[in-house]
Amino acid sequence: MLADIDIGRLLKGDRNALSRAITLIESHRSEDRAEKWQLLQAALPHTGNSLRIAVTGAPGVGKSSFIDRLGMYLIGQGHRVGVLAIDPSSKMSGGSILGDRTRMSDLSAHPDAFIRPSPSASTLGGVAARSREVMLLMEAAGFDVLLIETVGVGQSEVEVRFMVDYFMLLIQPGSGDDLQGIKRGIMEMADLIIIHKSDGDHLPLVRRSFPQIKAALHLLPQRSSGLSTDLLEVSSLEDRGFEATWNAVKAFVESARSSGFFEEQRIQQNLHWLEEGSMELFLERMEAMPEIQKKMEALRSEMIQHHTNPIRALNSLDHFLKELLDGGSKED
Amino acid sequence: MLADIDIGRLLKGDRNALSRAITLIESHRSEDRAEKWQLLQAALPHTGNSLRIAVTGAPGVGKSSFIDRLGMYLIGQGHRVGVLAIDPSSKMSGGSILGDRTRMSDLSAHPDAFIRPSPSASTLGGVAARSREVMLLMEAAGFDVLLIETVGVGQSEVEVRFMVDYFMLLIQPGSGDDLQGIKRGIMEMADLIIIHKSDGDHLPLVRRSFPQIKAALHLLPQRSSGLSTDLLEVSSLEDRGFEATWNAVKAFVESARSSGFFEEQRIQQNLHWLEEGSMELFLERMEAMPEIQKKMEALRSEMIQHHTNPIRALNSLDHFLKELLDGGSKED
Repeated sequence: MLADIDIGRLLKGDRNALSRAITLIESHRSEDRAEKWQLLQAALPHTGNSLRIAVTGAPGVGKSSFIDRLGMYLIGQGHRVGVLAIDPSSKMSGGSILGDRTRMSDLSAHPDAFIRPSPSASTLGGVAARSREVMLLMEAAGFDVLLIETVGVGQSEVEVRFMVDYFMLLIQPGSGDDLQGIKRGIMEMADLIIIHKSDGDHLPLVRRSFPQIKAALHLLPQRSSGLSTDLLEVSSLEDRGFEATWNAVKAFVESARSSGFFEEQRIQQNLHWLEEGSMELFLERMEAMPEIQKKMEALRSEMIQHHTNPIRALNSLDHFLKELLDGGSKED
Repeated sequence: MLADIDIGRLLKGDRNALSRAITLIESHRSEDRAEKWQLLQAALPHTGNSLRIAVTGAPGVGKSSFIDRLGMYLIGQGHRVGVLAIDPSSKMSGGSILGDRTRMSDLSAHPDAFIRPSPSASTLGGVAARSREVMLLMEAAGFDVLLIETVGVGQSEVEVRFMVDYFMLLIQPGSGDDLQGIKRGIMEMADLIIIHKSDGDHLPLVRRSFPQIKAALHLLPQRSSGLSTDLLEVSSLEDRGFEATWNAVKAFVESARSSGFFEEQRIQQNLHWLEEGSMELFLERMEAMPEIQKKMEALRSEMIQHHTNPIRALNSLDHFLKELLDGGSKED
């Protein structure tokens, strides 16, 4: 019964209790499920009260140093900052060569910050589900600004967009981050685009790119928030641009709260979470059915013995499922 | 009955017939399913005979110009080249600002090449499934080298790794593609790493990076092919390095065929395809059950009216499914 986790201490912001709670949430062991559910139920009344912010950008753009500086700025403003890295590719071998903690040297040493590397999970859906739960635990522990770092520019950003209130995209002109390199889809998701490393030798290129990107932003369709995408120059090296960044966030939040968009977006995100979570449950249930296990085993053996191929095997499975569940659609 | 698709012409390599067949495969309309299945069955005996190659790398590294030059080189060697772009983020708004065709100007005009942009699909699993089927159709139409371009560095690469015989990673030193920027997981997947844009002003940096990357490759674990990862310098601008690239591919294939790895990898990929495809079918079947539709509708309404949250809703769904299907595991 939550033997190892002291909920009271977690709610008081104790980082050890939070760490242990997250480890439990990330557990894949089925015997931990009841305990997980208890933990989340206890945490739930104390969640939802943080600002959830995505920080994304291509590898090498400097997300970690940006988060380090932004986090320290926010702590200076009286906030407590939780950092969560989401890295779907880490399922292969465990993330980047350098770890997050060494790359966020100031923030990782501060008592008002909590940094958690990416959970490992066998599916992207799994990463997203666990990450949402980790966010709730951080909120319950009183971290009121959550920075969600995503690696790469692709599917993970689409998932993360459904988890946050605000989405920052870091770019660096001249590093493939010209207009051809930035995916239009990612640009459309961003509430704020930050030209990072706006310092030293990079400055001339930054100054040239700024108006081009500004012009490109005008070509994007109207955003569902009704607000336009902001564009800022930031240097983590020179610790410059973080007040402007935070002002942009605050202006967005104020406007989105008064228009109702903020609340509406969270409801939509909860519906999305339900859809994703229901799929996970559907699969779990199906895969637990002995008839289905037997059928899958037979198809796998046939495949290994070259007596079938995936197209034929899936067609056979389709017919099998229709008979087994005897409900289903009549389309074919 | 495949009214619009002439299988005979498809098998003779007719590009219009192939285009129409791919459009059918990518259709989401349930009334097209029987026809899709017929088409795939007709194509199946003529598939499996191409070399499937992934070309990946961060945005801006020059994948399109690389594919353009490599494709033209391969056509010069007597091959017919199919190009398929896989871009999971395109579900948001339709891919990059510039289209593939304008970026592969020589190849897209050549009769022995066939370029297909990314299918749109509502899930990454969906993209992968459709892409596998598109690959089979290209093979049936006689394209014997397939280049699968993926955008971004993340989840999509992991999926694509399960679809190809050979995996090329393009990098560009000095553009975030230093050792910190390249994901270790992606490096481990690569059969060949190409330092692209090895020309002009980039050359000094390329020469400096080459031995560093070479050294880093030695730190990677033993690969399942038993072969080590190759490293080459290529310039698409100066049309240099493509013979060496193709020699590396051929040497790999020869060795992998004689060791049995080539065939074994394809069997594993077919098993993976079965797993992914079965999940798609499981979900389809569950979502088609009227009891489940009703339950989901109720949970959605509760959520919109703030009477529940995703954690509670999913717990309720979990219990509901257990009762409904009456099989399942006993873990909680």
